[in-house]
Amino acid sequence: MEAWGSRMAIMFESITSVRNPRVKHLVRLRESSHRRRQGRFPVEGRREVERALQSGWPLETLYFCPDYFPREDAYRVVEAADAASVDCVLMDKAPFAKASLRENPDGLLAVAHTRTLSLDDLPAGDPPLLLVAQGIEKPGNLGALLRTADAAGADALVAGDPVADLHNPNAVRASQGSFFHVPVAAASTEALLAWLSRRGIQIVMTTPGAERTLWEADFTGPVAVVVGAESTGLPSAWLAAPGTAVRLPMRGLADSLNVNTAAAVCLYEAMRQRRVAR
Amino acid sequence: MEAWGSRMAIMFESITSVRNPRVKHLVRLRESSHRRRQGRFPVEGRREVERALQSGWPLETLYFCPDYFPREDAYRVVEAADAASVDCVLMDKAPFAKASLRENPDGLLAVAHTRTLSLDDLPAGDPPLLLVAQGIEKPGNLGALLRTADAAGADALVAGDPVADLHNPNAVRASQGSFFHVPVAAASTEALLAWLSRRGIQIVMTTPGAERTLWEADFTGPVAVVVGAESTGLPSAWLAAPGTAVRLPMRGLADSLNVNTAAAVCLYEAMRQRRVAR
Repeated sequence: MEAWGSRMAIMFESITSVRNPRVKHLVRLRESSHRRRQGRFPVEGRREVERALQSGWPLETLYFCPDYFPREDAYRVVEAADAASVDCVLMDKAPFAKASLRENPDGLLAVAHTRTLSLDDLPAGDPPLLLVAQGIEKPGNLGALLRTADAAGADALVAGDPVADLHNPNAVRASQGSFFHVPVAAASTEALLAWLSRRGIQIVMTTPGAERTLWEADFTGPVAVVVGAESTGLPSAWLAAPGTAVRLPMRGLADSLNVNTAAAVCLYEAMRQRRVAR
Repeated sequence: MEAWGSRMAIMFESITSVRNPRVKHLVRLRESSHRRRQGRFPVEGRREVERALQSGWPLETLYFCPDYFPREDAYRVVEAADAASVDCVLMDKAPFAKASLRENPDGLLAVAHTRTLSLDDLPAGDPPLLLVAQGIEKPGNLGALLRTADAAGADALVAGDPVADLHNPNAVRASQGSFFHVPVAAASTEALLAWLSRRGIQIVMTTPGAERTLWEADFTGPVAVVVGAESTGLPSAWLAAPGTAVRLPMRGLADSLNVNTAAAVCLYEAMRQRRVAR
């Protein structure tokens, strides 16, 4: 590790002071307004940085601090980033601690370019299966929905009228790396409804008041599964749109299921129906 | 609110000092060893306290601090607790802030008796449907599983070899009140396997390496759905037990689904199959 450390100091630019302007830049990337203006967002942690590299996500800089590496092989991430032409910068412990968003940093913190696709750029399966997350407020919920969309094989996630910033660090973290694997678009309800109609994609929306259960919906064709914020549910523009409203039957207390749980149950029901149909 | 406040001060014992021994007791209830020794645990927040009262859970004391009440009708919770013979204690802001586990307290913090059922005391549906959470490490995951078990109509949750303390405040909180609604037992794998076998309850366990998908399992009879910790999965004693191992097909990245998501998909598949069977 020592030998590696000396090599690193020779090979890479290094930051030793907490007053370095790049540390300030990293700290400011915690603000969504700054992320938007800069078109950049922080990607912290080995799993996240590795996923981003694997998916070819545009990383600009990787700051690394070997003092925080839990295992020596964390150097491999630096090598992989360097090989992918990411600007790698060695950082001392104090500035890294200041820049890090985590209580227990693992010594890897990248800056990535933000990227959101337009609806027309989204990939479409055969038949398409989209997850629409409408008005989601908590970044952690968006991240969990990305993880679920990834596992359950949705083609993409569309954030409808997003309240949470898609590039919020909590969204990245909660996705456990799926952030870099699932195509994401953001759109207003109006634009999204028009686009779905043009594409002939059927809407299946989950709402507690629906008469039908999710098992009565047909997921075998082109489908967008629409879930809403836990507190407010789906807005009237959705509920009035042509499509099928379904509910997950709930026993027990009146509290609705977590939005991510509802999405997962619907997407796996879609997978089941599609397997039966084949 | 003022008038109510004066009445409260007359009606109830009050605590004004942060050095009051009961404040210290409340702070110590954050430690699982203290909770175990005392047979008591903290229940904080209006939703949680209301759920506990509604479910007839044995509350010992309700500490309340009107300075933190977000709305005047929080007094109703105190009235309901008082009517249920719970010892109600008025608290000043400083001691309440010290005792509270939350960043933004809502002025209600109860102490409840711990309660875990034995396997033989668990209620059984017709046919039984149990959720077994094996070796769960994170209290928040246990809480989320309780919420899911509640919504999806499982009869009870059994914590197999629990690592997380069932009465951890994060478990209570993540359950969104379902903690007080879903019967819970804890048992060793050995005792649990013997009990399930005696009761003729079929085991359906989720494990990523299984050949069958969850849709190939039969959930229409007496069933225990078994999910394991995300990091370690199910121990060999489970995998070797008679029963059906199933997987949730996963697209995308290799990371497994959240344990709660897996449980929800299985329990809703059980609900679907049981509806079809009827």
